[in-house]
Amino acid sequence: MTTAGLGLPMTVPAPGLPARVRIHEVGARDGLQNEQGVVPTEVKAEFVRRLADAGLTTVEATSFVHPKWVPQLADAERLFPLVRDLPVALPVLVPNERGLDRALALEATRVAVFASATESFAQANLNRTVDGALAMFEPVVARAKAADVHVRGYLSMCFGDPWEGAVPVAQVVRVCRALLDMGCDELSLGDTIGVATPGHVTALLDALGGAGVPVGALGVHFHDTYGQALANTLAALQRGVTTVDASAGGLGGCPYAKSATGNLATEDLVWMLTGLGIDTGVDLGRLVATSAWMADRLGRPSPSRTVRALSHKEQ
Amino acid sequence: MTTAGLGLPMTVPAPGLPARVRIHEVGARDGLQNEQGVVPTEVKAEFVRRLADAGLTTVEATSFVHPKWVPQLADAERLFPLVRDLPVALPVLVPNERGLDRALALEATRVAVFASATESFAQANLNRTVDGALAMFEPVVARAKAADVHVRGYLSMCFGDPWEGAVPVAQVVRVCRALLDMGCDELSLGDTIGVATPGHVTALLDALGGAGVPVGALGVHFHDTYGQALANTLAALQRGVTTVDASAGGLGGCPYAKSATGNLATEDLVWMLTGLGIDTGVDLGRLVATSAWMADRLGRPSPSRTVRALSHKEQ
Repeated sequence: MTTAGLGLPMTVPAPGLPARVRIHEVGARDGLQNEQGVVPTEVKAEFVRRLADAGLTTVEATSFVHPKWVPQLADAERLFPLVRDLPVALPVLVPNERGLDRALALEATRVAVFASATESFAQANLNRTVDGALAMFEPVVARAKAADVHVRGYLSMCFGDPWEGAVPVAQVVRVCRALLDMGCDELSLGDTIGVATPGHVTALLDALGGAGVPVGALGVHFHDTYGQALANTLAALQRGVTTVDASAGGLGGCPYAKSATGNLATEDLVWMLTGLGIDTGVDLGRLVATSAWMADRLGRPSPSRTVRALSHKEQ
Repeated sequence: MTTAGLGLPMTVPAPGLPARVRIHEVGARDGLQNEQGVVPTEVKAEFVRRLADAGLTTVEATSFVHPKWVPQLADAERLFPLVRDLPVALPVLVPNERGLDRALALEATRVAVFASATESFAQANLNRTVDGALAMFEPVVARAKAADVHVRGYLSMCFGDPWEGAVPVAQVVRVCRALLDMGCDELSLGDTIGVATPGHVTALLDALGGAGVPVGALGVHFHDTYGQALANTLAALQRGVTTVDASAGGLGGCPYAKSATGNLATEDLVWMLTGLGIDTGVDLGRLVATSAWMADRLGRPSPSRTVRALSHKEQ
C-alpha cells in the first residue's frame, strides 16, 4: 500500500487484474456529437490536444458521417489536419465507403465502423438489417486493411435495446464474430442505453471467449445511465479486458435531459484504475483541468463526479 | 438469463455472490441531516413510511444527537413515535448516554453509535481521541445490550481522511475489534470522503477476516464523491458482505456543493443487485417514485442516475 498525494486515491492493487489499461478516449467524438450547440473547430482541436497532453494515448478525433446526420461534426475535414500530427492514436468514425474515402484522403491511420447487435437499432441508426449493415462494412474494412489502416468495430446495444428489451448473448457473439472475420482489429462492446450489470458483462465476455474471440481484441464501452458503468468496468477488468472506452468529463449526454445516456467519465475511471495500481499513463490533474476547461466552453458543469470533486477542491 | 420488464435490468447472476443483500437505508437520517432547509416532521415521517412501503427492511429513522449539532433532526422526539410501529427495523443514531436515554424513552429497539478510524476526525466530529470516543461508547453499548437493544457501530474514515490522507488498514482493524469487543452487533465501514477503490475494499475486508471479524457482522457505507461507490460495493459483495448502506435518491450531500459527498443512491444499488439476481425485497419502481417525491419536497433533482433515468421515462 502506498500513500497518495492530494487529489489521488491510495494505491491498493487487487489480485487478478491487468497491469495496464488502454483508455480509448471518446469525448471529442462521442461526447461532442451529442452536444446541442456548435463547438468551434479550434476549440475541438484544442480539446484533442489537451487530452493528448494529459497522457491519453488514443483520442477518437471526429466522425466522417454525412453532416446531415451529425451536424456537430460537420467540420471533420477542417478539424482532422489540425490534430493529425499529435503523437497519439487518432481514430475517426467512418460509416461507409464514402466516409472511408474522406478519412483516407486526410491520411487517417485508424478508422472505426459502427454496427448494431439488434435489428431495431440497425434499422433506426443505419436504415439496414444487421446483416445488411455488415455487408456495407465489408468493403470498408477490406479497403482499410489494404491501406494498412487499423479498424475498430463498434457494436451497439450489446446488453439491451430500447425497442427489443433483452438482447441474447448469442446474438451479440454472432455479430462480433462477423466483424472480426471481415478483418476488424478490435471491437468495442457498447452498452448504449446503460442497462448492463456486472454479471451480464461477465456472461458476455465468457461467451465471446468460448467462441474463440481473444480478450485482447475486446474493448468495453459503458454508459452511466443507471450509474453502473464503473462497476461493469471492474467486472470486465476481472475477465482480462484491457481496453476501456471513456469520455473526458462524462461528455455525451446531458444528465438532465430526457435521454440521459452519459458515457463513463474518464476521470472516474482513472480514479479507480489509479487506486488499483493499474497503469494508464494519464495525469489525472491535467485531465480534470481539461474537462473543467471544456465544461466552461460548453457552459454547463461536468457530469463527472471526480471532475466536480477535484475542481471544487481547487477553488 | 431472464428478461425484464420496463425499468428493470436483465437478470444475469455472477458466480460467488450472496443470494440476498440487506440494504441499510440511511436517506431519512444521513441524507436529511445534510439538507440545508428544514424538512417538516410529517414529510420526514411520510418519507420513512414510503421507504418501508417500497420494501426496505431497515430504515434509519433519525438521530438523537444534540439539536445544537444537527438542527435538521431536532424533531427526533416528535418524529420517532410517528413511524415506530412500522413493520421494519428503525435504527436511530445515539452519540452518548444522553442520546441513548432519549432513544430508550421512546422504545427504540435499534441504536447506532459513530466512531472514527482516525484521530483527526475523532477530534473534529467528537472532540475526543479515538480511544476517548470508544470509552464514551462503552457504557452506551453495555446499557443498550442490557436493554436487549441491537447496536450498530459506524466507523468513519476507513479509507482515507481529509487531514491525514491515507488510513492504514491495521488502524481500522483495531477500532473495529474494539467496537465488536464492547458488544456492537454489527459494524458499518464508512468511506466518508469517497476516496476508496475496489482493491482497498478487498484489502480491508481480508484484513478484518484475518483478525477474526465475521463478514456477517460487516456492512459497507460508500460515498460517491469520485463515482466509486458501486464498484466498491461489487468488490465487497465478492468478499461476502451482505449488508450495504445506501441513501434513497442519493440524498446526503448536494452534488453541486463544494463539499460534494453524496451517499451511494439506493436505486443505483438496487439496479445492480437486481441485475445480479440478488434479492433485496425492494420494489424499484416504488422506490424511484418515493425519491422523486422527496426531490420535489426538497426542490432539487435527485443525484441518483437511476432516479433521473426512470423518472424521465415516466414523463
